[in-house]
Amino acid sequence: MIRVGVYGGSGYAGGELVRYLLGHPETEVAFVTSRTHAGKPVGEVLPNLAAFTDLEFSDPNDVSAEGLQAVFLALAHNASQKFVPELLARHPELRVIDLAGDFRTPDPEGYKKYYGVEHAAPDLIEEFVYGFTEAARERLRGARLVANPGCFATSILLGLWPVAKAGKLRGPVTVSAITGSSGAGLKLRPTTHHPERAVNLRAYKVLVHQHLLEVEHFLGPGPRRLLFVPHGGPFVRGIFATCVFPELSVAELGRIYEETYRSDPLVRVFRGTPELRLVRDTPFSLVGWEGTEEAAVGLVAIDNLAKGAATQAIQNFNLMFGLRETTGLLRPGGFV
Amino acid sequence: MIRVGVYGGSGYAGGELVRYLLGHPETEVAFVTSRTHAGKPVGEVLPNLAAFTDLEFSDPNDVSAEGLQAVFLALAHNASQKFVPELLARHPELRVIDLAGDFRTPDPEGYKKYYGVEHAAPDLIEEFVYGFTEAARERLRGARLVANPGCFATSILLGLWPVAKAGKLRGPVTVSAITGSSGAGLKLRPTTHHPERAVNLRAYKVLVHQHLLEVEHFLGPGPRRLLFVPHGGPFVRGIFATCVFPELSVAELGRIYEETYRSDPLVRVFRGTPELRLVRDTPFSLVGWEGTEEAAVGLVAIDNLAKGAATQAIQNFNLMFGLRETTGLLRPGGFV
Amino acid sequence: MIRVGVYGGSGYAGGELVRYLLGHPETEVAFVTSRTHAGKPVGEVLPNLAAFTDLEFSDPNDVSAEGLQAVFLALAHNASQKFVPELLARHPELRVIDLAGDFRTPDPEGYKKYYGVEHAAPDLIEEFVYGFTEAARERLRGARLVANPGCFATSILLGLWPVAKAGKLRGPVTVSAITGSSGAGLKLRPTTHHPERAVNLRAYKVLVHQHLLEVEHFLGPGPRRLLFVPHGGPFVRGIFATCVFPELSVAELGRIYEETYRSDPLVRVFRGTPELRLVRDTPFSLVGWEGTEEAAVGLVAIDNLAKGAATQAIQNFNLMFGLRETTGLLRPGGFV
Amino acid sequence: MIRVGVYGGSGYAGGELVRYLLGHPETEVAFVTSRTHAGKPVGEVLPNLAAFTDLEFSDPNDVSAEGLQAVFLALAHNASQKFVPELLARHPELRVIDLAGDFRTPDPEGYKKYYGVEHAAPDLIEEFVYGFTEAARERLRGARLVANPGCFATSILLGLWPVAKAGKLRGPVTVSAITGSSGAGLKLRPTTHHPERAVNLRAYKVLVHQHLLEVEHFLGPGPRRLLFVPHGGPFVRGIFATCVFPELSVAELGRIYEETYRSDPLVRVFRGTPELRLVRDTPFSLVGWEGTEEAAVGLVAIDNLAKGAATQAIQNFNLMFGLRETTGLLRPGGFV
Repeated sequence: MIRVGVYGGSGYAGGELVRYLLGHPETEVAFVTSRTHAGKPVGEVLPNLAAFTDLEFSDPNDVSAEGLQAVFLALAHNASQKFVPELLARHPELRVIDLAGDFRTPDPEGYKKYYGVEHAAPDLIEEFVYGFTEAARERLRGARLVANPGCFATSILLGLWPVAKAGKLRGPVTVSAITGSSGAGLKLRPTTHHPERAVNLRAYKVLVHQHLLEVEHFLGPGPRRLLFVPHGGPFVRGIFATCVFPELSVAELGRIYEETYRSDPLVRVFRGTPELRLVRDTPFSLVGWEGTEEAAVGLVAIDNLAKGAATQAIQNFNLMFGLRETTGLLRPGGFV
Repeated sequence: MIRVGVYGGSGYAGGELVRYLLGHPETEVAFVTSRTHAGKPVGEVLPNLAAFTDLEFSDPNDVSAEGLQAVFLALAHNASQKFVPELLARHPELRVIDLAGDFRTPDPEGYKKYYGVEHAAPDLIEEFVYGFTEAARERLRGARLVANPGCFATSILLGLWPVAKAGKLRGPVTVSAITGSSGAGLKLRPTTHHPERAVNLRAYKVLVHQHLLEVEHFLGPGPRRLLFVPHGGPFVRGIFATCVFPELSVAELGRIYEETYRSDPLVRVFRGTPELRLVRDTPFSLVGWEGTEEAAVGLVAIDNLAKGAATQAIQNFNLMFGLRETTGLLRPGGFV
Repeated sequence: MIRVGVYGGSGYAGGELVRYLLGHPETEVAFVTSRTHAGKPVGEVLPNLAAFTDLEFSDPNDVSAEGLQAVFLALAHNASQKFVPELLARHPELRVIDLAGDFRTPDPEGYKKYYGVEHAAPDLIEEFVYGFTEAARERLRGARLVANPGCFATSILLGLWPVAKAGKLRGPVTVSAITGSSGAGLKLRPTTHHPERAVNLRAYKVLVHQHLLEVEHFLGPGPRRLLFVPHGGPFVRGIFATCVFPELSVAELGRIYEETYRSDPLVRVFRGTPELRLVRDTPFSLVGWEGTEEAAVGLVAIDNLAKGAATQAIQNFNLMFGLRETTGLLRPGGFV
Repeated sequence: MIRVGVYGGSGYAGGELVRYLLGHPETEVAFVTSRTHAGKPVGEVLPNLAAFTDLEFSDPNDVSAEGLQAVFLALAHNASQKFVPELLARHPELRVIDLAGDFRTPDPEGYKKYYGVEHAAPDLIEEFVYGFTEAARERLRGARLVANPGCFATSILLGLWPVAKAGKLRGPVTVSAITGSSGAGLKLRPTTHHPERAVNLRAYKVLVHQHLLEVEHFLGPGPRRLLFVPHGGPFVRGIFATCVFPELSVAELGRIYEETYRSDPLVRVFRGTPELRLVRDTPFSLVGWEGTEEAAVGLVAIDNLAKGAATQAIQNFNLMFGLRETTGLLRPGGFV
């Protein structure tokens, strides 16, 4: 059994991670931290897990990674860049999977621009493998430090990366994506207040969403412009991303997607449209395509808390430890 | 009082039309037809109207437009092209507002391609004014025959027409739009079955939706390609359209929108994002904009049954009869 | 024109009140207060009203009721009991419609028990008419001070009061009711956080909801026990109340409801079930009945922000000023 | 491995059953029938299962139960009473778990009254064990024929049976319950048409729902009347049942529930309210209680497709075959 710890396990992504880890046949969860809920049973704060664990939340200062093989970090953005260096100083062999934005892009300038702060550990960023699993398996196998992609970034890359890899990402490529309210997390906000969200739809961070940083970097330079418009929609879980390629035929896009994802165990690829409900609470990505001879459209659906966070982290964890990629990826009902 | 009749008043758009007409201070509804419900009180089939009318639905064969000044047609697509010629033969002075796709585009070839049938009255199409109100007021004043735009077409034109008019519609322009389930009408379908729609999202008719016909024709030729991806979302009323202009700055788009819509009584225009809930059950269009120096995004929200059908028909009716455009329409929607 | 002021107009009920008052043909809104938003345009805070008023929110200390004929209070519970005495001291002729719980029940002990505080103006309570319109028209005509019923209380009384009046309210009568999230107001709370509310249902304040105070008092003593279970449901607007009468036949209940509500302009009464969507954003109450020879069930649907707050306040206002009860309220809701 | 077949596997309950059986470690699914979809891959009709099985739907006439140890029937009501006798005639040793209403109540008169037809195999009913698992474990162990309870019946019995067993079910006991739209199945109906269901709530079959037949029979005679009001709500999965006991104190109810369910692996019991979202897509029942010294309220939440159908069938199957009751009860994302 691989002993792991989870820092920040009471939020939506962290709780989802704990949920999957508790059902993972090769791991043992040594601790789950939460500053807010330290001392309370995990199953009291996350009642969906009540029948599955007797763990209590710990204060992060009261636990040690001594004897652990890996930790997952589901902290707020900007927090792990301070925490990881301390952790590694004490436990140089420890493997880390970080779900925050801190170590996704080796571009401190970009980080400052998009996340608003000076990066506290710029030298460490390069050591992290960017864990967009489908594109990074070889680097992930045996990796020590992994930065888990953002939820929108994952959905965009599922649509764009195969095309970029094929050298066909050209022109102004637009991605219009819509996320459920769980993407905004536990924190109460007017935009996730039920009376105002329930029959609503709005755009936000138009063309300037911070996930552009990691997407642009991962895709690398090329003869294209990426125009990304995120929206918030009236549902809880899921992201649907519509990627419009103005200089690609539908046949070409289909060929590219099929070749890319043919053997991926957690991607279903097909001509047609995904349906968001079919990825709800699953680790699967649905990648569809449609279009004409003149233009093609890639259609991606994922669960923002699963492939967009927790289950991609587990995919990466599995690869890091030489396990089958899908180990432990099918389990108890969601907290939301 | 202007005496009017409604053909096809038991569907969602037709029923909405009746609802507004009953509250219109200058009209009197002589009859409302419904093959299915002929003989039943309107208020039994549409209980929301029970306190407002004693009318019964009539069979279309049992009523006459004699003595009427106008009729509204909310029939199935392909039906009014047969019905209108007969009607006009009998009542040459009658004014007609048609909510179907039949007379929107003077392009019988295009009609056949997008609607699947040979048009039955091609010569009549040219006589119809395309009723995208904000762009056609002069032609609508006093018009005899008006073709009311489609719901998606209305949302797209609200975003694109000002830019086309300014001569700035260039490059591949993508519109990603999402509609509520009422857009698919009363007919029971798997895609509007509640268990499968309620937490779902899917694309459909990708790049080939029939409203492209009227939009392309109305915008006319130009150095642009229009890439339209419609989606169905988990809500009942409303369309949110995201229009991405890859060769326009945000400042330019803002200027264009403000100039265009400044004096429109039923359009609210502002930098930022519309919220779909704020147009629910109102005749208003919200037109927002966002973007960067390199690219701009127009964001449009309308109620598909109101501005996308019934209230735009009333706007047009008002103009046709020399009334104030907003007559019978002005009432604020709810905040939630 | 009757000049009125609204204290507390930025919450959901207060904003709804302003919305209806702006469309009321016999009133003129002199001011709307909001401590939080003082100085901002009403239409900026409540964008649904942007096209309808140029008013700005005022600080309550900066306005005077001088020259007004009536004020509406939509303040937090426990606030108006301090505010009303001051107001009446300065403006003894002013008419007041209070939407809070403070003056609904002349029972300071009960108030303390259910609302948790010692009442600050116990002597004033008796002067208020309890504004459950359908039962209190005579007392409301010309009344100076009116306490508007609570939303749940209104739905319960619509079901129970006719039976009590007929002397048939006997045995343990249960009311199970479910409210939309707007009932909890603007304040952000975990129970109205979209991710946790959107596909949820829960009971709360089981058998001890504070609206029992006003309901029990209004119904008066009798050979019955009232068992009320409120629930919160995954929708925004509306209350559906199911009232089970174990000692009444369906025929008897039908007779009682029909006789009671036959002439009420804003109640629709019929055998069968109401549908919540048909009262959404309307001032109407739907009162249905079903059952057997041995037991009967009353089924009530209202919009909690309309009949449960703002439109009942307007009904009462209209009666107080000798206007037709439905003035400013009649407009059909949508079918969907 | 226990070889099983599923008759009627393309509906919501049948599909859910297949989903769980595919993940069950001790079973092998030999066939799944569907008249409508015979010949199509299961994963094409139920795309959520695409990655989990290569089975095709079979026509029921093309398969044989030869060599199977058990079959599950998820046919329409009134169908299995004809099918089961034929099946048992051919395969007398076969074990059967029937999810329909046909064999739940040994009361052909009652069946006729509630289901509208003369029962075709009245003598066979007595041989079936009624599979409300928590109350029937001893009879289920080794049982050959099991009738799986209805979804509403399960929720009602979870609330009432412990009280009846304790001899405390007295007086008029009301149960007000609300179900999601998946309870009405795949068949398109106006009441599950998204535009009309999505923000709606309505009662139906008030005091006369057919599940009363099995509930009354299972509880047996006693000094109580059961008044059951079912409702349809604006969500997809789940039933929330509110059981009001007018002659029980909250302390007594708590004691009864705790004693009854203390050791049940799939029931969570606690003072307070269940939240429906916490049972979504899980086999768990949440049983809460609240109230006063004079009256008590039991609050039950289940997933109608899981504990209300498929997972209770698996619980029963496990007991019939001597497996641990919870075997195989945690797996892939839901179809709705």
